[in-house]
Amino acid sequence: MNFASDNWAGASPRIIEALARGADGIAPAYGQDDLTRELKARLADLFGREVGVLFAATGSAANSLALSALSPPYGAVYAYEEAHIVGDEAGAPEFFTQGARLVPIAGAGGKLTPAGLEATLARGSGSGSAIPRPAVLSITQATESGTVYRRGEITALTEIARARGLKVHMDGARFANAFAFLAKADGISPADITWKAGVDALAFGLTKNGALMAEAVLLFEPEKAAELEWLRKRSGHVVSKAWPIAAQFLAMLENDHWLDLARHANAMATALSQGLVAAGHRLGYETQANEVFAVLPKAMIAQLRQAGARLYEWPVHGLPADRLPADDADLVRLVTSFATKGEEVERFLALAG
Amino acid sequence: MNFASDNWAGASPRIIEALARGADGIAPAYGQDDLTRELKARLADLFGREVGVLFAATGSAANSLALSALSPPYGAVYAYEEAHIVGDEAGAPEFFTQGARLVPIAGAGGKLTPAGLEATLARGSGSGSAIPRPAVLSITQATESGTVYRRGEITALTEIARARGLKVHMDGARFANAFAFLAKADGISPADITWKAGVDALAFGLTKNGALMAEAVLLFEPEKAAELEWLRKRSGHVVSKAWPIAAQFLAMLENDHWLDLARHANAMATALSQGLVAAGHRLGYETQANEVFAVLPKAMIAQLRQAGARLYEWPVHGLPADRLPADDADLVRLVTSFATKGEEVERFLALAG
Amino acid sequence: MNFASDNWAGASPRIIEALARGADGIAPAYGQDDLTRELKARLADLFGREVGVLFAATGSAANSLALSALSPPYGAVYAYEEAHIVGDEAGAPEFFTQGARLVPIAGAGGKLTPAGLEATLARGSGSGSAIPRPAVLSITQATESGTVYRRGEITALTEIARARGLKVHMDGARFANAFAFLAKADGISPADITWKAGVDALAFGLTKNGALMAEAVLLFEPEKAAELEWLRKRSGHVVSKAWPIAAQFLAMLENDHWLDLARHANAMATALSQGLVAAGHRLGYETQANEVFAVLPKAMIAQLRQAGARLYEWPVHGLPADRLPADDADLVRLVTSFATKGEEVERFLALAG
Amino acid sequence: MNFASDNWAGASPRIIEALARGADGIAPAYGQDDLTRELKARLADLFGREVGVLFAATGSAANSLALSALSPPYGAVYAYEEAHIVGDEAGAPEFFTQGARLVPIAGAGGKLTPAGLEATLARGSGSGSAIPRPAVLSITQATESGTVYRRGEITALTEIARARGLKVHMDGARFANAFAFLAKADGISPADITWKAGVDALAFGLTKNGALMAEAVLLFEPEKAAELEWLRKRSGHVVSKAWPIAAQFLAMLENDHWLDLARHANAMATALSQGLVAAGHRLGYETQANEVFAVLPKAMIAQLRQAGARLYEWPVHGLPADRLPADDADLVRLVTSFATKGEEVERFLALAG
Repeated sequence: MNFASDNWAGASPRIIEALARGADGIAPAYGQDDLTRELKARLADLFGREVGVLFAATGSAANSLALSALSPPYGAVYAYEEAHIVGDEAGAPEFFTQGARLVPIAGAGGKLTPAGLEATLARGSGSGSAIPRPAVLSITQATESGTVYRRGEITALTEIARARGLKVHMDGARFANAFAFLAKADGISPADITWKAGVDALAFGLTKNGALMAEAVLLFEPEKAAELEWLRKRSGHVVSKAWPIAAQFLAMLENDHWLDLARHANAMATALSQGLVAAGHRLGYETQANEVFAVLPKAMIAQLRQAGARLYEWPVHGLPADRLPADDADLVRLVTSFATKGEEVERFLALAG
Repeated sequence: MNFASDNWAGASPRIIEALARGADGIAPAYGQDDLTRELKARLADLFGREVGVLFAATGSAANSLALSALSPPYGAVYAYEEAHIVGDEAGAPEFFTQGARLVPIAGAGGKLTPAGLEATLARGSGSGSAIPRPAVLSITQATESGTVYRRGEITALTEIARARGLKVHMDGARFANAFAFLAKADGISPADITWKAGVDALAFGLTKNGALMAEAVLLFEPEKAAELEWLRKRSGHVVSKAWPIAAQFLAMLENDHWLDLARHANAMATALSQGLVAAGHRLGYETQANEVFAVLPKAMIAQLRQAGARLYEWPVHGLPADRLPADDADLVRLVTSFATKGEEVERFLALAG
Repeated sequence: MNFASDNWAGASPRIIEALARGADGIAPAYGQDDLTRELKARLADLFGREVGVLFAATGSAANSLALSALSPPYGAVYAYEEAHIVGDEAGAPEFFTQGARLVPIAGAGGKLTPAGLEATLARGSGSGSAIPRPAVLSITQATESGTVYRRGEITALTEIARARGLKVHMDGARFANAFAFLAKADGISPADITWKAGVDALAFGLTKNGALMAEAVLLFEPEKAAELEWLRKRSGHVVSKAWPIAAQFLAMLENDHWLDLARHANAMATALSQGLVAAGHRLGYETQANEVFAVLPKAMIAQLRQAGARLYEWPVHGLPADRLPADDADLVRLVTSFATKGEEVERFLALAG
Repeated sequence: MNFASDNWAGASPRIIEALARGADGIAPAYGQDDLTRELKARLADLFGREVGVLFAATGSAANSLALSALSPPYGAVYAYEEAHIVGDEAGAPEFFTQGARLVPIAGAGGKLTPAGLEATLARGSGSGSAIPRPAVLSITQATESGTVYRRGEITALTEIARARGLKVHMDGARFANAFAFLAKADGISPADITWKAGVDALAFGLTKNGALMAEAVLLFEPEKAAELEWLRKRSGHVVSKAWPIAAQFLAMLENDHWLDLARHANAMATALSQGLVAAGHRLGYETQANEVFAVLPKAMIAQLRQAGARLYEWPVHGLPADRLPADDADLVRLVTSFATKGEEVERFLALAG
């Protein structure tokens, strides 16, 4: 019963097959290989336009590289206060941007709200004011709270940003889960919720979705790729053997394998969520992607752990007052993945009944 | 009627005399001169212990150099949300520290509160949490709101900080005004409200107090001065002719000239403040140093300007609800200085009656 | 006939097998997994002492992370003028160290010489001198010229460095090839040519040796690992799935697979080198590891290319005058790898005869 | 007999008078004052075109700010190996540019040569080469060796730089001495040896020439000033009271006071130089500005010191072989200034006869 994180899961067999195929051959180094070229074309197809594609070893690096392409060193980056770039990347955004400032904004349901963004942007700081120059809005899709921005929610934010000259970054470490959710609900394309919705750069990650390591910055202003390539090189993220990363992405995109895996993870989360609600538990956030936040009695959490469940208690910051756990309870986060088995969910629900 | 800022005022005649004396002579460059040596001894006397003394061209640089001595690049610096380092230094702290993060904290009366500091420090961010490492608490004395931390208020904050391993920085751009206020009220020494109260580094500025340029970092861990000297050199703040800065500091410290000037500025602010209250105006913050924050009708502000008054409307963020200006009014900031004349205050009050 | 580079080769089958084994399981993220733990123990065995182990995505990142652990931002790093950190990493050392300076030094045979190092370190720059503080000596093993420092050559350099308070970094992107050469010749251990020879940090890479991605910083002052971990996290090199990197290292170290692969590559280079000399060609540098530098007629280079040979013309800087190519010739670099086949060498020699 | 450095001299009386005039008044802070505005117009006149003007506290800061306007973080800056930015600024260029690399180039007579510059720019570093991107050529005028680039020498270098897309920086800490020399010899204007000769940014300093602190970056691409202003603010070089710096510059430029002072310093150096040659001593470099480099017997140096002479022994690196001192002699540097008196020169020559 691994619900600790989707990055605890191994990898899809197709990933290993793709690596095995390439291991036998010869490929030019530093991204000059055929697979990388093929992937670039494939991503252009997927997003319906030319994109700059730059691999990175981690989602943190992809996020920070994207931010460094969008913000000057004296810029300010606005993000939801519980965003990964704010709370989980140890200052990587500051390092890559050479000192840009992260400005955390309160929100609702794990998301930024237009009103919250407006209020923060409107605040100056006195006549002699010299705050870092507002430069970037960052949106996480799906959010760290397992919720998903709908197309209209994205554009509501990006329009505010663009009206003030800000660029827009999207942290897509779980873009697959968000897209799988929205594609079902809304009949939309990846373009619709990225560049057509005002996003300038997407950190597109498939590691959590079943790859071993497949992260890339997608620049929807591809003319910025040349400069970012210099920054990427000096950050040590230009791997000598790039083909294994391209091979993983290609295996994922082939026949919508990435979506199949994301749909599976989402479905497991939905089942878990519905079962918990049916058993009378309260949710912290709506379950839309592959994360379930539920309020469970502390004693039950201990029993679940003893039975082998892997899960994390989670900070309640950002939760509305009526969803806060009582003293004898805790908010827990349950993450499903491509590898989650139906039996695991069933067993967990049986214990949490 | 210059109430725009204390850094609009010229300089005390004694400053010019001190410069004139030195201009005739010869002095080794880069701080190896006699006046700099003399000043270091004088500051050790004033603070009752050995201190590391490093000049900087501005208060912003002094603050940021101090922060770079106290925080690693991956550190977090906690400060009141309206602090100068947060809102008015354009990312200098990030630049000098190579990317440390400023974490703004709400407060009351222009000051940090122990509860606010505790709450912020207590917040983590999930199990995989990797926020920048908590490193520094920054306190502004006197505050940007014209209030002054009393000794007990300082220690209440520094004890929380030290219990978590944080170092403490004090922005003393108006330290003179704070000390003049406290010395009168409490019978305390500079040591009592700095290193004896848990402060590790003080950005000590006398520019606003009547010098042309007199800013320094005082390190109460003087063994850190050698490393900070390297950082200072590469930041371009090791002036070739250091004696003029030392000469200004010495002229200020001689016979407590700095305190006389600060007391005058404070007295002018008190007179202004009392006059405005007597005339029925509401204050935004208590007047303790040399800044008055008052709510005035917009029409009156316009008239005052026309009559030659220099002043700024000021953001109301941080003001308690019962002090917020009505729609036809604004919060204004009035700063007095060593050069403010009694007649200026009287004339202003006559117009604002 | 791929002699372009060892990072053009695919990967050893054992690498893929190791990844396949892990793909099926579940492992805690961010390096908390069993394989990473196992590898750390294995590396401690190999080097005969406790070591700090930090993965990175590339050799450039491993080098730069190591340098950032050894040099302050205001430090100077001394290296051979053709070292990879000087000429091929696009300023990564400057980025990771936050601005340390690389000081290139001339040498002989692709190596630093004690005399060259002494002369550079001895040079000051005037009375007011403030060059960045001498901080690190960097040695590449095997060198970019395919030569190998013998134990005595290393200690001759590190003793000079240590006498002046410098730390020592070793770029070991081809450490396997160097060790395979020296182990045969001298009967030495990895410890003998690293920490016992005065090296503080080794960038240990097996990617060129047959892995897909296996690079790590080994700190022989393991107490520095905690701080470097912070720097690594903010550089985006803490991969969420660390076990695949650990699995690759472990597969390599098991039964000395890494040495078998390196010996094969070296043997191929030796065969190539001897064949070229036998055919009357001049070598640029002695062939000790897996790189051959030979002077070939330009017409022959063109013919070899047409026959399918992959190789690079190489800058002659650093070559002694008597080895410089004539006008109708060029210096070429031929790199062999774990995947080089004997027939490739034979075919190349037949054409270059 | 102060020949230690021109920055040991005090200040011209006119500097103090200018400060005294301003001390009495009121002036908007942060460079919004009238004197700063007046100076900008005055500098536009002097250079015959619009210029961006940004003050800095030191020549090091002015140099580094200029470099940060001209080079990306992944850029390379080419300079003479004994340039101040290379050897005396403790890594300030790296700090301000966020990691650009300084590439030192050998020269002759304290100057870069076109051949040396070409050779360095021509050198790549292997096929996978990724040196930092060539970005800036830096020229020092007058040089650290007391020599002066003539107009044709400047354009010979800047044409090479421009042909490769490099920008050009000029370190003008002793621009006054250089211009005083050239204006006499060649009948040229400040424009002729700066922007009309291909220079993009000049660090223009008058501190060594008799001010207390008067340093500025002049941008001949004034549209770059807005961005540099952000970088300057975060470096702590936007002083709150800017008028004292403007006042110093204005006092210097009024009635060519700066040139009178520079001509005096140069004349003193010429007298010293001619006297030493007449006494049979050898010069290290031609005396063109206000520095004399002479080879003196060690015993004589000791006697001069005992008699009160202040001077520095100087590194011989860069000296042609036929000018190197013998074992019992040393190269000394003698710097004259606006404050040097004829009697000091006479007394020195009497002792060195």
